[in-house]
Amino acid sequence: MDSTMDPAFDDIAAAARRIEPYVRRTPLLVAPELSQRLGAAAEFKCENLQAIGAFKARGACNAVFALDDAHASRGVATHSSGNHAAALARAARLRGIPAYIVMPEGAPRIKRAAVEGWGGRVQECAATLAARESAAAALVARTGATLVHPYDDPWVIAGQGTAMLELAGQTAAPDAVLVPVGGGGLLAGTAIACRRLWPRTRVIGVEPAGSDDAARSFASGVLQGAGTPHTIADGLRGALSARTLRIAKASVDEIVTVSEDAIVAAMRLMFEGLKVVVEPSGAVPVAGLLEGRVRGARFAVILSGGNVDLDHLPWIRGAGAD
Amino acid sequence: MDSTMDPAFDDIAAAARRIEPYVRRTPLLVAPELSQRLGAAAEFKCENLQAIGAFKARGACNAVFALDDAHASRGVATHSSGNHAAALARAARLRGIPAYIVMPEGAPRIKRAAVEGWGGRVQECAATLAARESAAAALVARTGATLVHPYDDPWVIAGQGTAMLELAGQTAAPDAVLVPVGGGGLLAGTAIACRRLWPRTRVIGVEPAGSDDAARSFASGVLQGAGTPHTIADGLRGALSARTLRIAKASVDEIVTVSEDAIVAAMRLMFEGLKVVVEPSGAVPVAGLLEGRVRGARFAVILSGGNVDLDHLPWIRGAGAD
Repeated sequence: MDSTMDPAFDDIAAAARRIEPYVRRTPLLVAPELSQRLGAAAEFKCENLQAIGAFKARGACNAVFALDDAHASRGVATHSSGNHAAALARAARLRGIPAYIVMPEGAPRIKRAAVEGWGGRVQECAATLAARESAAAALVARTGATLVHPYDDPWVIAGQGTAMLELAGQTAAPDAVLVPVGGGGLLAGTAIACRRLWPRTRVIGVEPAGSDDAARSFASGVLQGAGTPHTIADGLRGALSARTLRIAKASVDEIVTVSEDAIVAAMRLMFEGLKVVVEPSGAVPVAGLLEGRVRGARFAVILSGGNVDLDHLPWIRGAGAD
Repeated sequence: MDSTMDPAFDDIAAAARRIEPYVRRTPLLVAPELSQRLGAAAEFKCENLQAIGAFKARGACNAVFALDDAHASRGVATHSSGNHAAALARAARLRGIPAYIVMPEGAPRIKRAAVEGWGGRVQECAATLAARESAAAALVARTGATLVHPYDDPWVIAGQGTAMLELAGQTAAPDAVLVPVGGGGLLAGTAIACRRLWPRTRVIGVEPAGSDDAARSFASGVLQGAGTPHTIADGLRGALSARTLRIAKASVDEIVTVSEDAIVAAMRLMFEGLKVVVEPSGAVPVAGLLEGRVRGARFAVILSGGNVDLDHLPWIRGAGAD
């Protein structure tokens, strides 16, 4: 595989072997009592319980540990709204190399603290995609670090697909797998793996209506811009790339959108009924069930992350830190 | 075994076989990043992810499914501050028999709703142990139901010990197992199982300082009353019984106490660092680590439950439902 190629199933299998010492095999949780609320039976692949609290640990570890020593020694760099940044900082520390992180101003405090806790070197920039990309390019030119894009990278996509590999060993094939969509890295990796492992299972991306570029791109077949995303799901504000759209067109069955109210309700439902902490982005596929956007009787849901500001939970009015 | 006997290891093994279709094998979660905050390595047996959100599902199922058909047909009854009540209602529904539940006025709303959701028939009484016991006795006299005490019952204790049975299959023997103490049912079952499975591991009960009857009873060797408990850990306000004190004296190494501030900090730490929802009672052993009350380098912690009012999390000042 080189950086221009799309990953295949074998790349995901190789990623699973490569990252096995560095990531957790996350549990698949069930809560039969939730079926009535959700209108279907659902099992939850808890990537919120993954290292750094999100599936991003998988792709970042795969990208970092796939580097040869010469490239690795100059470090890695990225621009990210959060979880990928923490994941890359952690993977770099595990390999003993520097991680340079460009973060937008106003990124959640908990996410910046996570990056710095792993020794990542943070550089702030304006909160636009263009500003992030140019700051990252300048950083790479200066340091010689390898840019590890949050999702438009074949090793990252292959790494994200390893959650689906585990999932297929944990339960029988459901009617559909529900995956949150931001830039489409998790969706792409999941779809490639699912097509091989559960060929009759549908792969459905779920996206906030307030950040629906993936649904528009998928429907039209042509890459749409992100526009100005308005959603509480801060991890899903990115836009598909040409690569992730191409993979989605080949292997994803459907992309649906959900409302902000449903995202908050889904998040609370996971806290209350499953007893796990999920961030808004992670609750998005559950919102798809709550709003009846997907057809089927039995679902596997990827709960993508759990990094949320616990002093400002969105269902608590006027909450402030003690 | 009859109701006057203390359970032995074989009763716990029998309980595990009996309840296997009705309870979950809960995951053991690790979060190496927490070691620094906790001052030790810890693994967490997530009984908050158990059916009904607490270990109580184990003891209640064992008690209900150990009944012969004649007794079972008249139903079961209990008085409980919450999780045992929901667990008994669920177990009774699974067996298709009635459950009569005496609950104190002012019990958390979420816990009453859980009981009623499982079809339990709730009768309120004053919030004293005497009022609860006399209301339950009257109920039993009227219905012929079998009283299933929340902890002073050998089948309940044997059922609670099954979490330790699972735990011993999930990791290597740690220096100590940390268990929250209220009435002492979980502590007793855990201690009996641990003595057999991990003979060199210490069993340490952890109790809120504001409800420290177990520590006082254990230290003096003589049963002390509950006094007037003042603690956020509503599941731990009960007092040891003669039976649970006897078992603790035989098989428990130590009982330590923790402050209310540490309980809240521990609860938040579990949300933030482990990404699971724990109720105050469940966070009590973690508070023991935060306050340095226990000696050792590696611990297994039983997170006993996750039923908490999410509109009023104790670290959020002035939080109210939206």
